[in-house]
Amino acid sequence: MNPAQHLLSADNTDADQAHSTAGNQVQIRALRTIPDVYQDDCLGSLIVESLQREGQSISNQSILIVAQKVVSKAEGRTIALASVEPSRQALQLSRKLNKDPRKIELVLQESSDIVRLREAPNGDSEGLLITRHRNGFICANAGIDESNIDGIESVLLLPEDADLSARRLRQTIQSLTGKTPGIVITDTFGRPWRQGLVNVAIGLAGVAAVVEDGCTTDAWGKPLFVTKPALADELAAASGLLMGKDAKTPVIIFDGVNWRDQSSSINDLIRTPKEDLFL
Amino acid sequence: MNPAQHLLSADNTDADQAHSTAGNQVQIRALRTIPDVYQDDCLGSLIVESLQREGQSISNQSILIVAQKVVSKAEGRTIALASVEPSRQALQLSRKLNKDPRKIELVLQESSDIVRLREAPNGDSEGLLITRHRNGFICANAGIDESNIDGIESVLLLPEDADLSARRLRQTIQSLTGKTPGIVITDTFGRPWRQGLVNVAIGLAGVAAVVEDGCTTDAWGKPLFVTKPALADELAAASGLLMGKDAKTPVIIFDGVNWRDQSSSINDLIRTPKEDLFL
Repeated sequence: MNPAQHLLSADNTDADQAHSTAGNQVQIRALRTIPDVYQDDCLGSLIVESLQREGQSISNQSILIVAQKVVSKAEGRTIALASVEPSRQALQLSRKLNKDPRKIELVLQESSDIVRLREAPNGDSEGLLITRHRNGFICANAGIDESNIDGIESVLLLPEDADLSARRLRQTIQSLTGKTPGIVITDTFGRPWRQGLVNVAIGLAGVAAVVEDGCTTDAWGKPLFVTKPALADELAAASGLLMGKDAKTPVIIFDGVNWRDQSSSINDLIRTPKEDLFL
Repeated sequence: MNPAQHLLSADNTDADQAHSTAGNQVQIRALRTIPDVYQDDCLGSLIVESLQREGQSISNQSILIVAQKVVSKAEGRTIALASVEPSRQALQLSRKLNKDPRKIELVLQESSDIVRLREAPNGDSEGLLITRHRNGFICANAGIDESNIDGIESVLLLPEDADLSARRLRQTIQSLTGKTPGIVITDTFGRPWRQGLVNVAIGLAGVAAVVEDGCTTDAWGKPLFVTKPALADELAAASGLLMGKDAKTPVIIFDGVNWRDQSSSINDLIRTPKEDLFL
């Protein structure tokens, strides 16, 4: 047992017993001391070091929500715009949308389809480009992020495969602590119909995207339609309560959630185009 | 000070001080002893009695998430299907959708527009009717609920004005306890593009629908686009972690959330059709 394992497993038994009675109480904590993250940093180690520094523990029943931003940075997904050569399509869209053609080029490279496009209303503001990311989910600008990058002319792409990122993070945390918390990688998306932004899941390890509600009859014994809560998106949205947009708390820990470890993938959260009435 | 006030304010000072350092930790609790709710029950009283029975307290910084189901029941929104006379349009849609025309009639009465309609694929299954509810939000079947109703041939409509329901609930709780927690009334909706259901806000008192993120620069001092988290929907989605679909825990309490009491309405969560690319 290495020192990290020792520290983190100190309250192991109690924590695991407490979690076995999950159902009436959930605790959400922010890690406060995650440092700035750079390419080739080991994010799992940074998380475990922060846990130790802050005297916080995790158990096998904990779930860690991790902002895409720090995952992408560690994975070197920062792209210097000067290195991008816009295609003819990107140049055409650039005029319609009043956006940098190099950013549009990256959006197109990251996407399998353009879902909606709204032209720029006038010279001062930008249009809107909503695409299906190669990983399946739909969002504005393929999730490409212009904020919190050190270096002015660069952008941050989503992880290439956020499920894989989540599984690797989990392995690192397991090797350092002996614990296997669930992992959900999130990004902040807008939504049809509703104002405001919410965090949604883009990559998973251990945590089911969607669960079947345990009960098949209601409180009066009448059969219920099977409901399927989107557990990963419930966790992602909840993490927004503590994950400030200043990127200082990119890791949020949940305890007390009623879940069980299983093989999982973000694909389970994505409707096929055939099922979807809003494409 | 009545006995309820006394009990609930026992840890008043500590609780209010604890909440002033909100930002690193959120606690979510379920009320476990809310009884079955019937028409003309005072839901606020039932909540306060449950708090007392369970020895749980709330502060002015708490937020209560309340399932639409118990609000609608207390408000007498249960409709006997035998009392409904389907219109010609409901009868026509009934054949296309393979649904009870009386239910469709109620959906139409509750809605301002039909947003999408998918015909029944075959005789065994039902089609899909997505409408804009008179209160503005878009959902399947105008949010009409067929489960957890005592009496087989009846359905439950959403509250007529869930903002008003939330404000009244808050007033009752204040009069019984002296505390003014925020209130969010929620329902469980499907979503475009993504599988699984999440709870969303349909009525508010005190809690902002959407907040402006406090910071205008990122961690490196670079100006940020203003982000607007949908606070009410973050809370609603998070409540799903403890609000089982068997309706036994329809009230969930949040503490530690960084929010401030303000005038609020569900209208602030709804995009105008002009802003929306997915109508």
